[in-house]
Amino acid sequence: MLPNDFYTPEVQGAYDLHSLGRFELEEGGVIEDLQLAVATYGELSPAKDNAILVPTWFSGTHQTWEQVYIGPGRALDPDRYFIVVVNQIGNGLSTSPHTAPDEIAMSRFPKVRISDDVIAQERLLREVFGIETLQLVVGGSMGAQQTWEWAVRFPDKVLRAAPIAGTAQNTPHDFLFTQALMDAITSDPGWAGGEYSSHTEVAAGLRRHAGIWAVLGLSTEFWKTEFWRGITMGEYRFTSMADFQTNFMEAVFTAMDPDALLTMGWKWQRGDVARNTDGDLAAALGRVTARTFVLPIDEDMFFPPRDCAAEAALTPGAELRVLPSIAGHFGLFGFEQTYLDALDGHLKELLAG
Amino acid sequence: MLPNDFYTPEVQGAYDLHSLGRFELEEGGVIEDLQLAVATYGELSPAKDNAILVPTWFSGTHQTWEQVYIGPGRALDPDRYFIVVVNQIGNGLSTSPHTAPDEIAMSRFPKVRISDDVIAQERLLREVFGIETLQLVVGGSMGAQQTWEWAVRFPDKVLRAAPIAGTAQNTPHDFLFTQALMDAITSDPGWAGGEYSSHTEVAAGLRRHAGIWAVLGLSTEFWKTEFWRGITMGEYRFTSMADFQTNFMEAVFTAMDPDALLTMGWKWQRGDVARNTDGDLAAALGRVTARTFVLPIDEDMFFPPRDCAAEAALTPGAELRVLPSIAGHFGLFGFEQTYLDALDGHLKELLAG
Repeated sequence: MLPNDFYTPEVQGAYDLHSLGRFELEEGGVIEDLQLAVATYGELSPAKDNAILVPTWFSGTHQTWEQVYIGPGRALDPDRYFIVVVNQIGNGLSTSPHTAPDEIAMSRFPKVRISDDVIAQERLLREVFGIETLQLVVGGSMGAQQTWEWAVRFPDKVLRAAPIAGTAQNTPHDFLFTQALMDAITSDPGWAGGEYSSHTEVAAGLRRHAGIWAVLGLSTEFWKTEFWRGITMGEYRFTSMADFQTNFMEAVFTAMDPDALLTMGWKWQRGDVARNTDGDLAAALGRVTARTFVLPIDEDMFFPPRDCAAEAALTPGAELRVLPSIAGHFGLFGFEQTYLDALDGHLKELLAG
Repeated sequence: MLPNDFYTPEVQGAYDLHSLGRFELEEGGVIEDLQLAVATYGELSPAKDNAILVPTWFSGTHQTWEQVYIGPGRALDPDRYFIVVVNQIGNGLSTSPHTAPDEIAMSRFPKVRISDDVIAQERLLREVFGIETLQLVVGGSMGAQQTWEWAVRFPDKVLRAAPIAGTAQNTPHDFLFTQALMDAITSDPGWAGGEYSSHTEVAAGLRRHAGIWAVLGLSTEFWKTEFWRGITMGEYRFTSMADFQTNFMEAVFTAMDPDALLTMGWKWQRGDVARNTDGDLAAALGRVTARTFVLPIDEDMFFPPRDCAAEAALTPGAELRVLPSIAGHFGLFGFEQTYLDALDGHLKELLAG
C-alpha cells in the first residue's frame, strides 16, 4: 500500500468501505475482497423506495457530488431521497492498484470494466441496503457510462436515468483522447511499468496528463474569456492562465495515483452497452425502460451533444436536454450557477414524472 | 547537419533555396545566412503584377499546396498567376535546427516569430523577384497567421488576403494545445535537450505528438464515421482506426525533425498581429486594406469559426466564409472534393473582385 494523502477522508470527506467479498471481473481477473467506498446522504425509507444512485467519473470521488450537487431543496435532496454515491472501482478510494493486496497491487491490478462496477453496485445496494429499485441513476462522464449500463443491464431496477456528459458506447475519438491521457503517464520513466514507489515519481507524466486535460476538458471560450478568473480555491484567486494551469489543473492531477488513473482510463475506453447485445447498440438501448433525460454539455469537446443525441434517439422515450457551460466537460464541477440551475430543473422534472 | 530523408526534393518535390544573407530576428537572434526554400508555379508577368504568395503551416511544406491546391482551372491557376510558396523558417527545408551551421544548430537555434517569416518573405519577393504587390496572400493554419501578419504589416502590398483555418492573434486554447504537442516531444529522454543525433531517437515522443494531433487535428465525426476508410495512401487502404493512426498519423510525424517541430510550435504559440500596435488587436486589424475572406473550417477543434468570426468583425470589409470539412483542421489536406470546391469558389470570387 502506497501512502497518498489525496485518498483520505480528511481530503475527500467521510465515506464507508463496504466489503463485497470475492468478485470475479468480466475480463477474467479476480478481486478477492472487493471494497467499495460509499457515501450516503439522507435516510432510506422503510419501503426502501426512495434511493438514488450516483456512480463517479474519471479521477473523481463522491466529494464533488456532496459539495456541488446534493443538498436540501436541490434535485438531489437528502431530506427526501436516500442518495448513494459509489466510488468506482480503481478510483483510489474503492479497491485500487495502490491499496490492493500485494498479489493484485500496482501493475498486477486486473482490468476492470464499466459492467463490473455496475454489477458490484447492484450487489452492494441489494446485499448491504436491501434496495431493489432505484428512483434515479445519475452520473457524469464515466458516471454516465455506468448510468447507461445500469439502464440497459437492469431495466427493471431503474425507474429513471440521467446520463450527463457521457455516452452509452464510447466513441473512437474518446478512445484516442483517453489514450493520449494514458500515454502521458506511461511515458514517464518514473512510472516504471506501474511499479513506482510514490506517485510523486510520476509528477512529470501527471503534469502532461493535466496539460492534455486543459486542452480538451474545458473549452476554447473558457480560456479565451479567462473564465478561470471567476474560479476560487478557498481564498485564492488565479492571476494568469499559467497560474490556473499550475495551481489548479496540475495540482489536482499530480496529487492522484497514476495506476488509478490508468485503471479508469482503460475502463473508460471500453465502455459500451452493446456488449450486452452482441454489439447491437440499438438493441441495447432499446432495452431501456427508465424515463431517461440525456444531458450533454453544449461546449463539451469530447462528448459533444450530437453524439449524445444519437444515443437518445435510439432510447425509447428518452429526451435530450442540453446543459449550458462555458467550462465544457469540466462544467461538471459546477463552476456556474446557471449550469446547476439548469441541471436541477431537469432532474426535478425527471423525478416528478 | 543531421540526415533526414523527409526533407529532400525526392520526398517533398522540387524547390529552390534562396539566400537572404544575414537576418536579424525579432527575439534578438541572428541567422548569418538565411535560406528560404521556395517553390514557384506559373510565370511572373512583365509588370510583376500577377503574384500570389502562399506561406506554409506547422509541419507542412510547399508540397501539399502543389498537389492539392494549385493547378490549371483552379483558383490558384499557374496559367494566370505566379504562385510563390515559401516554406516557413524552421520547417525543415528553409533554414532549420537540424540543417543550420553549428553555431545555431539544434538546441542553439534561435527563437523565430511569425513576423520574422513575413519580413523575410517580403525581402525575398522584392530582392529576388522584384515583386512589390501581391494579388493575394493565402495560407492555412500557421500560414493564416503569416497571411494576417502580411495584411497588417504591409497593407500597401497585399491586395487580397485569405487566412484559412487560423487566427491573427493566437488564442489561449491554442497556446495550451501547442504546449501539449511540444511537451510530448521534449519529455522523450531521446530528445536530449534538443541534441539527439537522429530524429529516430525521438520516435516515442513523436508518436505521442501524433497521438495528440489525432484528438484535435481531426474531428469527433471524422473518427465516428470512420472517414479514414476513404483516405488512400497510394494503393494502400486503411483497415482500422489503429492502422490509420499508426501508418498515417504516426508515420508522418515520426519522419519529421523534432527540433523543427519545436521551432514552429514556439512560433505558433506567439503569433499575434497586435504586436504591431502595442497589443491593440482592433487597431492592428483596422490597418488591413486588403479585400479579405476569413475562411475557418466548420469542424476545426482549435481554430473554431467563432474565433475567426471575431477577428473578421474587426477587419474592415472582411467577409466570413466557413468551409465544410468533416476532417476538421486536417481538412486542409484536401481529403474532400466538397471542401476544395468550396474553397476554390471563395478564392475565385475574391480574386475576381
